[in-house]
Amino acid sequence: MSDVITMAHGSGGSATGELIDEIFAPAFSNETLLAMEDSAVVDGSKKIAMTTDSFVVTPLIFNGGDIGRLCVCGTVNDLLMRGAVPKYITCGFILEEGLETDTLKKCVASLAETAKEAGVCVVAGDTKVVEGHGGLYINTAGVGLFPDGDKDISALNSADGDAIIVSGTMGDHHATIMAHRLEIDTDIKSDNAPLTEMTSRLLASGIPIHTMRDITRGGLGTVLKELAQSSNTVFYINEEMIPIAPSVREFARLTGIDPVYMGNEGKMVITVPGEFADKALEIIRGSRYGENAAAIGEVKKDENRTGKLIMRTKLGGERSLDILRGEGLPRIC
Amino acid sequence: MSDVITMAHGSGGSATGELIDEIFAPAFSNETLLAMEDSAVVDGSKKIAMTTDSFVVTPLIFNGGDIGRLCVCGTVNDLLMRGAVPKYITCGFILEEGLETDTLKKCVASLAETAKEAGVCVVAGDTKVVEGHGGLYINTAGVGLFPDGDKDISALNSADGDAIIVSGTMGDHHATIMAHRLEIDTDIKSDNAPLTEMTSRLLASGIPIHTMRDITRGGLGTVLKELAQSSNTVFYINEEMIPIAPSVREFARLTGIDPVYMGNEGKMVITVPGEFADKALEIIRGSRYGENAAAIGEVKKDENRTGKLIMRTKLGGERSLDILRGEGLPRIC
Repeated sequence: MSDVITMAHGSGGSATGELIDEIFAPAFSNETLLAMEDSAVVDGSKKIAMTTDSFVVTPLIFNGGDIGRLCVCGTVNDLLMRGAVPKYITCGFILEEGLETDTLKKCVASLAETAKEAGVCVVAGDTKVVEGHGGLYINTAGVGLFPDGDKDISALNSADGDAIIVSGTMGDHHATIMAHRLEIDTDIKSDNAPLTEMTSRLLASGIPIHTMRDITRGGLGTVLKELAQSSNTVFYINEEMIPIAPSVREFARLTGIDPVYMGNEGKMVITVPGEFADKALEIIRGSRYGENAAAIGEVKKDENRTGKLIMRTKLGGERSLDILRGEGLPRIC
Repeated sequence: MSDVITMAHGSGGSATGELIDEIFAPAFSNETLLAMEDSAVVDGSKKIAMTTDSFVVTPLIFNGGDIGRLCVCGTVNDLLMRGAVPKYITCGFILEEGLETDTLKKCVASLAETAKEAGVCVVAGDTKVVEGHGGLYINTAGVGLFPDGDKDISALNSADGDAIIVSGTMGDHHATIMAHRLEIDTDIKSDNAPLTEMTSRLLASGIPIHTMRDITRGGLGTVLKELAQSSNTVFYINEEMIPIAPSVREFARLTGIDPVYMGNEGKMVITVPGEFADKALEIIRGSRYGENAAAIGEVKKDENRTGKLIMRTKLGGERSLDILRGEGLPRIC
């Protein structure tokens, strides 16, 4: 087929068929998808989890990942955070005219490989073409099953005495995308990763997990502030315990960005009763992508401060953190 | 909030929260969505149907509908075509900077109203903002359940002796979008509609339906050619039996477009054993959006012509039709 995408590839006719036959079908080869029906019929369970995310990241390919890997990670992680087993994803591609066919192929191959790593099957897809400058947007929606019954893991459940544990370093994805834009040569890599192993091991351990949440756009500060509000508690975190890679710390210092508001794409925060903190930490550290996990604070019940996120600073003071204000980093995911 | 969308609305921080609080949450008010969790946990069934579609139509609002109504119809209809009961949809919004807040509000309200008509619940959503010229893309993914067990309705199942029935006039949506682009003043309206009533009545009737397929991009010609190939049969249709509204017929004549390749957004084709044709037709005609249904041909087994779509023309000849070649109408849905 042609080296670049043209409007004809969105017609629903023969050129769309070519795109499907040459790029999508070989990458996602599975019976359900190849049936090319209006919708896929697959095994369900009594309860199911559903989520959706659109990805508009630029550049499409970056240090440590690309939009294809990113979209699977984002969707799979959202399902994992409720204790579901991610099973199926759908992919809606919006291609801009002029997109290089090779770039599309690379991102689609990466999407397929990450789906395999995360144990999900791409069961339905759609392609549209719009005018533009060679860009690519991908929407992934996902369904997760609860083979052993649904879990009560929710943003509502964080409680007095819980430990707050993050699964690794903050800001890697954010710094990667920003460094690309600024054309800064750095060894910082995106952390985009599916958190399947650590969550399934945590669930299997029997630890009564209260809340799991992935830390994406808006960063740790936004996520924890929202969790404090949802659960009517106060979240206390210790600035010096927040894991940040030295290169990201240096990047944040140079650019003046607060790592607490930098986005990630393969990190989560969990809350568990304090007495289970050590065990949970050990499990996460022993799991893929979890080697830098750390306990960074605790949840308290305090009517005078309900809904607050308080950071104990390195200098020994306290700072009340709000959710991210302003633009953040556009098109980070 | 501001009159137009800005990049800050995609930050994941406070401006995104404003967008959710002022536009999305009021429109889609339901407990599952308002929980604002990473993913929605909802009731499932032993088998489920899944589908996805992205919508990039321009203009965003057109005679008889808008992108909000369109995206629900497209997704719901894809689920219905496998005999599933559509239950849940997810919505991924990609907003272009400069989009008028009022336009977004109108499309979101229409989406919510159509979801209500179709009996589906919006259980998860996502919003991204990109640079651009005030445009809007929506991805909807859907899940349908099979409360009474899954049905064997498939593109593979059309068989010798089947009647081919279309649920109404061809080309209305295509002509509507094209007339807008050409700034032609016409009373043609998009047919965008959820086909819930006619499919549920057909299923309840006990008629052994072989295939159901909605007729969208690529038009009747593309869809029937694909069905002939999938089922290893020959599809014969009679040109003069294909229902086309007089205004659309005139529009097609003026613009030189073949109505057989014009897209629709609220029409389906079904195949049923010939002896059930009259009953099926009666049910569809008695259902909402089905008053112009017609039997237009039959399926035959013929090894010499397997996979062909043959149109018997008004002049008494035969014409073999292929799937749509070329661009079609860009951004029709």
